[in-house]
Amino acid sequence: MRISELSRRTDVPVATIKYYLREGLLPPGERTSATQAVYSEAHVDRLELIRALLGPARLSVEAAGRVLRVIDDPPETFLDVLGAAQTATAPTGASGTASDEDPDLGPARELVAELGWTVDPGSVELTQLASALRAVEAGGIDVVDGGLARYGRTVHDLAQAEVATVPTDEISRAVRQSVLGTVLLEPVLLSLRRLAQQDVAGRLFTDAEHPDRAD
Amino acid sequence: MRISELSRRTDVPVATIKYYLREGLLPPGERTSATQAVYSEAHVDRLELIRALLGPARLSVEAAGRVLRVIDDPPETFLDVLGAAQTATAPTGASGTASDEDPDLGPARELVAELGWTVDPGSVELTQLASALRAVEAGGIDVVDGGLARYGRTVHDLAQAEVATVPTDEISRAVRQSVLGTVLLEPVLLSLRRLAQQDVAGRLFTDAEHPDRAD
Repeated sequence: MRISELSRRTDVPVATIKYYLREGLLPPGERTSATQAVYSEAHVDRLELIRALLGPARLSVEAAGRVLRVIDDPPETFLDVLGAAQTATAPTGASGTASDEDPDLGPARELVAELGWTVDPGSVELTQLASALRAVEAGGIDVVDGGLARYGRTVHDLAQAEVATVPTDEISRAVRQSVLGTVLLEPVLLSLRRLAQQDVAGRLFTDAEHPDRAD
Repeated sequence: MRISELSRRTDVPVATIKYYLREGLLPPGERTSATQAVYSEAHVDRLELIRALLGPARLSVEAAGRVLRVIDDPPETFLDVLGAAQTATAPTGASGTASDEDPDLGPARELVAELGWTVDPGSVELTQLASALRAVEAGGIDVVDGGLARYGRTVHDLAQAEVATVPTDEISRAVRQSVLGTVLLEPVLLSLRRLAQQDVAGRLFTDAEHPDRAD
């Protein structure tokens, strides 16, 4: 199909498709003349994926490029799949923040040790956790009963189910599942957390505050 | 203290402090002359909070301003606290995405109904969930056993503990806790999820792939 039909099929403007082609997110079509190319169903799928990465997953064009390159050129062993997935989808900046680039890793290491986890001691995620813990402390907020380890145990249960979804027969499928599972499920988790809070708060406060509602 | 000392105490450059003053994130100091002002311990705390919001919580300056305004000027009833907190901390753009501003709410409503939750049908979070679900579908990834409802049940347990941390004696404290709890714990949750995946994947793949490591 021509670029105009690709645009109609995917609802992505031609100018945007050309931008993705220039940035290398979308592979070139097959040239039919000096000024024209044709595109395939693979381009339709790829555009859907690019939109998912740039939209709900909120990746930058640069980060989406990294994710797509890992999918196109996967690592050689399953052992390296998750690391490649996490590196490709890490928020911009080593620690995920401009103002706190070298946080004290102590509290993050202690939390991980309390949970009994084995993690990569040099991973960006540990730095991000350290920086996030510092922010919780700076905000002076109260943490749930059971402390932050409770968050850890909760996500570990999920992680076991999540890692079990990664196919072990073919590296390219494993990479696709880990990369996209990491990044596309984050917004699901965050929006569900906020909706769950609405449900819980609604049950707690609506009845207790009924008198106020007559104001 | 003078602005130079405020800068030293907080490790925030004077130019950045002046920027936060201009943007209204930091309240003005007390004027001592036409060109000088003095700042208090409250300014030190406020700067720590601003850095936490702009750093690990990854809010824009505009969103941080909304969060601080809700803390400074809280709603009148507890019933409105969570809504105000969620609105102030919502990702930019109604649906949290530039490319999918009007997703089909059907699948998000079905998931919430399956979970038995009561949520605000017009809330931004429902639109965000819809958009996130669309991205998961576009990515063609496999979802954990038990489906996405499993994420819902997991975060609902957390939400009950989280809402229980909100003080019910004073609205201003309730607002601070809900606003900051919503936004500062998101990066904790996401970094812990990735670290948990490292732990799980490490246990699964390291042994299974041992022969490869001799390469």
